[in-house]
Amino acid sequence: MTRYGPMYGPDLTFLGVERCDVNDPASFAGADVVIIGAPFDGGTSHRPGARFGPMALRQACYLPHDGSRPSLALRVDGLKDLRVLDAGDVECYSGDVDGSLAAIEDAVHRIAVTGAVPLILGGDHTVALPDARGTARAHEPGRTSMIHFDAHADTGDIAFGHLHGHGQPMRRLIESGAIRGDRFLQIGLRGYWPEPETLEWMAGQRMRSYEMTEIVHRGLEECLTEAFAIALDECDQIFLSVDIDVCDPGHAPGTGTPEPGGLTARQLLDSVRRICYELPLAGMEVVEVAPPYDHADITAMLGNRVVLEALSAMARRRKDLAGGTRWDPRQPLLDDR
Amino acid sequence: MTRYGPMYGPDLTFLGVERCDVNDPASFAGADVVIIGAPFDGGTSHRPGARFGPMALRQACYLPHDGSRPSLALRVDGLKDLRVLDAGDVECYSGDVDGSLAAIEDAVHRIAVTGAVPLILGGDHTVALPDARGTARAHEPGRTSMIHFDAHADTGDIAFGHLHGHGQPMRRLIESGAIRGDRFLQIGLRGYWPEPETLEWMAGQRMRSYEMTEIVHRGLEECLTEAFAIALDECDQIFLSVDIDVCDPGHAPGTGTPEPGGLTARQLLDSVRRICYELPLAGMEVVEVAPPYDHADITAMLGNRVVLEALSAMARRRKDLAGGTRWDPRQPLLDDR
Amino acid sequence: MTRYGPMYGPDLTFLGVERCDVNDPASFAGADVVIIGAPFDGGTSHRPGARFGPMALRQACYLPHDGSRPSLALRVDGLKDLRVLDAGDVECYSGDVDGSLAAIEDAVHRIAVTGAVPLILGGDHTVALPDARGTARAHEPGRTSMIHFDAHADTGDIAFGHLHGHGQPMRRLIESGAIRGDRFLQIGLRGYWPEPETLEWMAGQRMRSYEMTEIVHRGLEECLTEAFAIALDECDQIFLSVDIDVCDPGHAPGTGTPEPGGLTARQLLDSVRRICYELPLAGMEVVEVAPPYDHADITAMLGNRVVLEALSAMARRRKDLAGGTRWDPRQPLLDDR
Amino acid sequence: MTRYGPMYGPDLTFLGVERCDVNDPASFAGADVVIIGAPFDGGTSHRPGARFGPMALRQACYLPHDGSRPSLALRVDGLKDLRVLDAGDVECYSGDVDGSLAAIEDAVHRIAVTGAVPLILGGDHTVALPDARGTARAHEPGRTSMIHFDAHADTGDIAFGHLHGHGQPMRRLIESGAIRGDRFLQIGLRGYWPEPETLEWMAGQRMRSYEMTEIVHRGLEECLTEAFAIALDECDQIFLSVDIDVCDPGHAPGTGTPEPGGLTARQLLDSVRRICYELPLAGMEVVEVAPPYDHADITAMLGNRVVLEALSAMARRRKDLAGGTRWDPRQPLLDDR
Amino acid sequence: MTRYGPMYGPDLTFLGVERCDVNDPASFAGADVVIIGAPFDGGTSHRPGARFGPMALRQACYLPHDGSRPSLALRVDGLKDLRVLDAGDVECYSGDVDGSLAAIEDAVHRIAVTGAVPLILGGDHTVALPDARGTARAHEPGRTSMIHFDAHADTGDIAFGHLHGHGQPMRRLIESGAIRGDRFLQIGLRGYWPEPETLEWMAGQRMRSYEMTEIVHRGLEECLTEAFAIALDECDQIFLSVDIDVCDPGHAPGTGTPEPGGLTARQLLDSVRRICYELPLAGMEVVEVAPPYDHADITAMLGNRVVLEALSAMARRRKDLAGGTRWDPRQPLLDDR
Amino acid sequence: MTRYGPMYGPDLTFLGVERCDVNDPASFAGADVVIIGAPFDGGTSHRPGARFGPMALRQACYLPHDGSRPSLALRVDGLKDLRVLDAGDVECYSGDVDGSLAAIEDAVHRIAVTGAVPLILGGDHTVALPDARGTARAHEPGRTSMIHFDAHADTGDIAFGHLHGHGQPMRRLIESGAIRGDRFLQIGLRGYWPEPETLEWMAGQRMRSYEMTEIVHRGLEECLTEAFAIALDECDQIFLSVDIDVCDPGHAPGTGTPEPGGLTARQLLDSVRRICYELPLAGMEVVEVAPPYDHADITAMLGNRVVLEALSAMARRRKDLAGGTRWDPRQPLLDDR
Repeated sequence: MTRYGPMYGPDLTFLGVERCDVNDPASFAGADVVIIGAPFDGGTSHRPGARFGPMALRQACYLPHDGSRPSLALRVDGLKDLRVLDAGDVECYSGDVDGSLAAIEDAVHRIAVTGAVPLILGGDHTVALPDARGTARAHEPGRTSMIHFDAHADTGDIAFGHLHGHGQPMRRLIESGAIRGDRFLQIGLRGYWPEPETLEWMAGQRMRSYEMTEIVHRGLEECLTEAFAIALDECDQIFLSVDIDVCDPGHAPGTGTPEPGGLTARQLLDSVRRICYELPLAGMEVVEVAPPYDHADITAMLGNRVVLEALSAMARRRKDLAGGTRWDPRQPLLDDR
Repeated sequence: MTRYGPMYGPDLTFLGVERCDVNDPASFAGADVVIIGAPFDGGTSHRPGARFGPMALRQACYLPHDGSRPSLALRVDGLKDLRVLDAGDVECYSGDVDGSLAAIEDAVHRIAVTGAVPLILGGDHTVALPDARGTARAHEPGRTSMIHFDAHADTGDIAFGHLHGHGQPMRRLIESGAIRGDRFLQIGLRGYWPEPETLEWMAGQRMRSYEMTEIVHRGLEECLTEAFAIALDECDQIFLSVDIDVCDPGHAPGTGTPEPGGLTARQLLDSVRRICYELPLAGMEVVEVAPPYDHADITAMLGNRVVLEALSAMARRRKDLAGGTRWDPRQPLLDDR
Repeated sequence: MTRYGPMYGPDLTFLGVERCDVNDPASFAGADVVIIGAPFDGGTSHRPGARFGPMALRQACYLPHDGSRPSLALRVDGLKDLRVLDAGDVECYSGDVDGSLAAIEDAVHRIAVTGAVPLILGGDHTVALPDARGTARAHEPGRTSMIHFDAHADTGDIAFGHLHGHGQPMRRLIESGAIRGDRFLQIGLRGYWPEPETLEWMAGQRMRSYEMTEIVHRGLEECLTEAFAIALDECDQIFLSVDIDVCDPGHAPGTGTPEPGGLTARQLLDSVRRICYELPLAGMEVVEVAPPYDHADITAMLGNRVVLEALSAMARRRKDLAGGTRWDPRQPLLDDR
Repeated sequence: MTRYGPMYGPDLTFLGVERCDVNDPASFAGADVVIIGAPFDGGTSHRPGARFGPMALRQACYLPHDGSRPSLALRVDGLKDLRVLDAGDVECYSGDVDGSLAAIEDAVHRIAVTGAVPLILGGDHTVALPDARGTARAHEPGRTSMIHFDAHADTGDIAFGHLHGHGQPMRRLIESGAIRGDRFLQIGLRGYWPEPETLEWMAGQRMRSYEMTEIVHRGLEECLTEAFAIALDECDQIFLSVDIDVCDPGHAPGTGTPEPGGLTARQLLDSVRRICYELPLAGMEVVEVAPPYDHADITAMLGNRVVLEALSAMARRRKDLAGGTRWDPRQPLLDDR
Repeated sequence: MTRYGPMYGPDLTFLGVERCDVNDPASFAGADVVIIGAPFDGGTSHRPGARFGPMALRQACYLPHDGSRPSLALRVDGLKDLRVLDAGDVECYSGDVDGSLAAIEDAVHRIAVTGAVPLILGGDHTVALPDARGTARAHEPGRTSMIHFDAHADTGDIAFGHLHGHGQPMRRLIESGAIRGDRFLQIGLRGYWPEPETLEWMAGQRMRSYEMTEIVHRGLEECLTEAFAIALDECDQIFLSVDIDVCDPGHAPGTGTPEPGGLTARQLLDSVRRICYELPLAGMEVVEVAPPYDHADITAMLGNRVVLEALSAMARRRKDLAGGTRWDPRQPLLDDR
Repeated sequence: MTRYGPMYGPDLTFLGVERCDVNDPASFAGADVVIIGAPFDGGTSHRPGARFGPMALRQACYLPHDGSRPSLALRVDGLKDLRVLDAGDVECYSGDVDGSLAAIEDAVHRIAVTGAVPLILGGDHTVALPDARGTARAHEPGRTSMIHFDAHADTGDIAFGHLHGHGQPMRRLIESGAIRGDRFLQIGLRGYWPEPETLEWMAGQRMRSYEMTEIVHRGLEECLTEAFAIALDECDQIFLSVDIDVCDPGHAPGTGTPEPGGLTARQLLDSVRRICYELPLAGMEVVEVAPPYDHADITAMLGNRVVLEALSAMARRRKDLAGGTRWDPRQPLLDDR
């Protein structure tokens, strides 16, 4: 696998963490998390640009790119308390969805089998198939659940004559057996897609999809708590898929298919924090950040913070599990310093 | 009346619904809703551009423009379960407010008298006068109430030496007798306009205006419930006017006179849904979407979804009224599929 | 001090209020509030542009620039019920932080000693040092507390080899003795800065910093109420520092170092209102509005409204203190008109 | 007439020149040039925004707004060597083309009758009718010629059912007798409008229109020289109308109806310089600068420089006429300093 | 083939010309030109977005979309004097370059075999292969020459592991035998690609490439005249490929791989005019207009005018060939009207 | 000296060339050119943002960042045929002009004394003083001439109370004796600054400034040839200073003080090529690229190409001097391949 950075801009790592090479397992031996880019946007049904997502997510931060980010809220440094490496980008030709997906899955799987958490920077959501399958294949079959933040179910069947595209990965994932349909938790859906036939297919798979109306009426926290219980039932770990369009377009304009009425940035960050603190994470992706449609980098910055929030919460989870402690969200910032 | 699409871009219909001709009543016989554009922005006191609102609202959607939009939340298809047609645009010369308003009122009235709901795509808010009057004139006098979402009261008297402009339509409407002042419900007002004299005039008309402070302190749901009761008291139907600037500029930057501190997009969509589900709608307008100031089309997309939310809720209302059922907002998406 | 307006655009005043000259105390005798610009952005660690903040904040309003702004919510006119003047800008050379800070502090102090409230339009947050110190020096030592809205603590020590910059003013303020560390209230912090050593220094100063997690879990209102009690304990007045990046980037994209997950514009406006209504204000600043990164002027408009909200609440506070009345946020807009 | 600055932003003058009041002739007694804004864009057939032209043209300059601009090339100061005043804006309601045109013509005429050159900042090109007629009426009938830079002939007849709009002023001007058709020189036309019938009408009026093809093949200098000869034949002075869209969209994107293939900014500036240096100017307008579509203010800056180039050349013309000297464009900048 | 308009926006035709169906030859019997969109951008090596090129090129015009465009310069109406139809878009999945190219070539060939000129709206330049081959296959082998405007030679061999992409179509074309290498004329090349090995391959094919340095030093007109002679030597017709990035980024910012130092918009328009007036056109494409990177639509407008210039010149060529006349570029616009 | 990349984004080199460390002379032993960034914009009098110039100039290219750029026109690879290294950025605090200039001059001088050509990426034009002085000090006194492309003379005396700023470096340079006034060649000046007193000072220094009017009337080539002769008279090498605002704002919008009427991008590239091919270069800077005001990166791309053009011409000059050959600009691209 070739490093792809030089194509879509310079070769750099996520906020300056150390590099590794996905073809050289020794280079990431002992890593807790390996970040890898999937600069593919050939699967978008509307506005492209997510190919520049990895480049943008890696650098959208005003602080020094020094491989350190101490979280004010969680009191850990996700980039230092964990061993986080960056493997660069998978070479993806957006004109070749099949070849790109194969290359991505291979790379993700190479990471996951070492026990490291693959953290994929998309790219459009087509990459969810290789991301989650490459991860799940490294674990006991049927014991990886999915938590999926998105405005869209992404369970379409055929689009533009193809099985693969950014509206279909979740169907392919379930069909492939990589993820059980009844351990597939979707959060933030809204709008006018998919049509009833697809919803019926989803119901038939016993998926659990929280549309925004239910979230507004029941409360996001209650929905999450319920979802977590399902996710852990007969499963050992989760794959977390964050499509940035789960947020309202006011918070995340730089994306391909924005749908009004979504979560706030605050809600997304808090949800990701809860997931990575309360649940065992096997893999994760942040997708659909499309810089050509962004303004003042606010969508890229949000995506960057989603990654950091996950890493911080994973680090805090490890610390608390080891120490028998528990994080208190109500503790004042300067208390016990 | 000439189709106006070719002037401000190509001739297209709202998400691909069928066309009709406002001068040929047979062409929209049996329609439930007739969409019509009012590309007028000569009445704006500050940033223009709302003339491109109809064009933007019709096409700001990433899904196929196929005349179908099944609502995930409401389980109906507002474009198919209702008969929705698009009559194109009224020819509006922005340099001639009087002529434009007359042409708009005539067109709206032709639609309303057939029993169809006119759904007007503005244009600046000056068009509220012909929109609501053209609608109300088709019904029993004094029995149409108004629910008006806006950052501004739009009850000014004379501006730039004229009676008509985007800050004055609500005064003209009440003066004309088309809408009773005491059945005029305003939601979302804030900021520094109008001045006390105008507020006194409004109080004298017994209008009911919910400023954002009251909404924040009492809760939007409680305010809406109270407003609905007033709206139905001695009235048979409502006209719904949605000025997109009722939303916070973060959610709707593309408008002429943005005022910080407004509703979220989610709140607006949920409110429109409640109105069109719980109340009998006589007519509706979505105004003040100004594409030159929009970013990544997020304001146009929000306006498009306001229209769809209204149509979906109308369809669901009809279905539930017919079947004696009731929509449950807490029902999971995939339940009973 | 030279008027600086002509450098960064035309010479104009905040929404058309009258001018005064900071070197001619007679020109602002009897003023309640004197607005002054600090067009300095040499201290920004990342995106510059805040030098254009004063120009943008003064004019970002679609209403006539006529020196009058009657608040719908508070039923006072902050620009007319108070005597508000605009002293123009302090001449600031962004390449010379030391000289600029000295000039700003001198100007602010000249205003504060007359008993008028200096209201500074930044500029980057470096100016907090001269703004707050110039104000506090005009009052009894140790009796001015600080309420500081920001995503960042701004308590760094040395950056780029210098003591002064937009990440350090709060440390310098406390070190200078102008503001007591234990009367320093910070609201809205989040993200990944500063590092633990600085947090320990802050704890050592007995600062009270409300990170967003605490705010979300306890509620903003409860946090504010608690903070107000601290602010008034052994202090007579407060200095209010509003860094616009306390808001989420969706609401305030036009700033130098945006941090996702912040307050909504509505929350900021309501908070500023409470502070200026419930507490005695000695001085105030609105900083870090960076027009080059703004879209459709929404950040500048928010900053403009923060200023107006403060002025309106001060006017209402004075009125209610004088009349023994109390403002009711639940009162309908048209009630008692 | 009311000053209009406060509506579309703050009240300021062109680069800081002194103010005058068009209703108080004494205030501009002895003026050589009186600048006046015509913030009307109700006549645009496509993208609006030119209402903000006067505000943008007055301030689009990075130098101090100090009422002085020494021209490097012409060695005069157009703002100081001439007496240039700014009368503010005519109150224009874009929804009322008839009223706006009447108000503009009255104001322009008041200026022209004093012998001062009215220099109008548009606004869309609809204002050419009152601008040129208000000017010509102050001079001997039939002895004012027109030099008109534009991508479009603006000689349409009826549009949107009206006689007045930005595509028709030149026909109205000729019909009114204010300008002789055979002394109407158009430079820069191109594209696909107007249709042959209108061209025939133009030919019938014996207008002389230089389409870009002729300009490219013969050379701009030769065309100008030929045009100047016509302009002075039986005429005593000229009115210069500059529609910024005469320039290529690459040089002037911020306009309503950009047409590819136009002049460079350099060519326009040099042409305006020649006209104002070689010919006696009676009046001038710069129109169709539409800030909402501008980028980095480059179109507004170009318009600002067109005004300055005209003033500089007028000043140099006066100086050379008085001194019997002649400007040499090949003289090195520092020669004879 | 499915109409694709509804996917990337509404279904519309080029400036309102009539529709036809590429699968129904009867629908375009007798057509002179058939416009067809190729919304594919999976082959771009850097910035995507050209998939929206067809939609943008069809509507980027401020005049009525009425199927008529009388050219001022050429005195013909390219949309009416020729029979021009629009076949909509070929369904292209950007994730599948092979399938997309096959579908495009089939559609182009169906048009070309009827004798109509296929005029393809790209899409990225990958489509040149099916565009030119689909055209050439309809004519006698080896007798179609190519005139190719571009900043880049597009003669790469393998990129991202694939034969097809926007940097390689010209090599594939020559290899396929569709176009003779020694009748391949390239105009406007510049910059730093391709590398010497590829240039040697090109030289080996006896291609003739005019780099900008040669064009600047010899003059564009002389280069064109020379190229025309080569193009007609042993060939009967030409295919014209216009990559919008042949223009300088100042004139065409909205493209994927802009290269400074290119032609002006005026030069491109004049060149296209000469080609279509002086040479027999077999087919044409306008590619690499990428709306996400455009500003104020100036690149899309330029592309739209390139199409119109070609159509106008073809119409004038036919007229002059029929009448034995010759167009005179120096003739004044209103002469002989 | 600290590498500064991590502050204003990630740490990368110019198009992927190798790194060196300015404090470790061994790291750049044998280098022909050492690139170094000067991210300082505290000296700008108007729009800031040039601090991001080095980051933008290094990466604004769509080709692989592989340290190779074979020039089509010059048939050399400027990055490979010369030994070009990148020393990262000088740590510059924009709030401290004095400290920043000292650090820059030290770094530039360390490079120049080794015989390598320092190539500085600005930053605002304030850095010309340390750039040119640091270079000239490494050579025999009084034998380095200056060729300066700019819209502005940059010979002001005191601004904002300081000697250093982006309008004054050229006066400081001459005063310092680093560059002789009579070997100071300025190209592209225009507009309304500086005032006559400064022009007189310039004339007194016997500077030679080519204002755009002279350039247009005499031709750029003739002016350059004349300037070259002066530059080489009694001097051994030149320093080339390119302020990107020498180009017209249409070609270079992303800059602080754009002045309409400038060179085209093509003219600038060709001029830089001639200079670096015909003259011995001692040092060079590219300044005033301000990304916050850029669109679609076109200004950054132009600046990147200015650097490459210089390097390519230097490489070709060396080759031709060595081989006794001479480059022919009229040679066809594929000739002799």
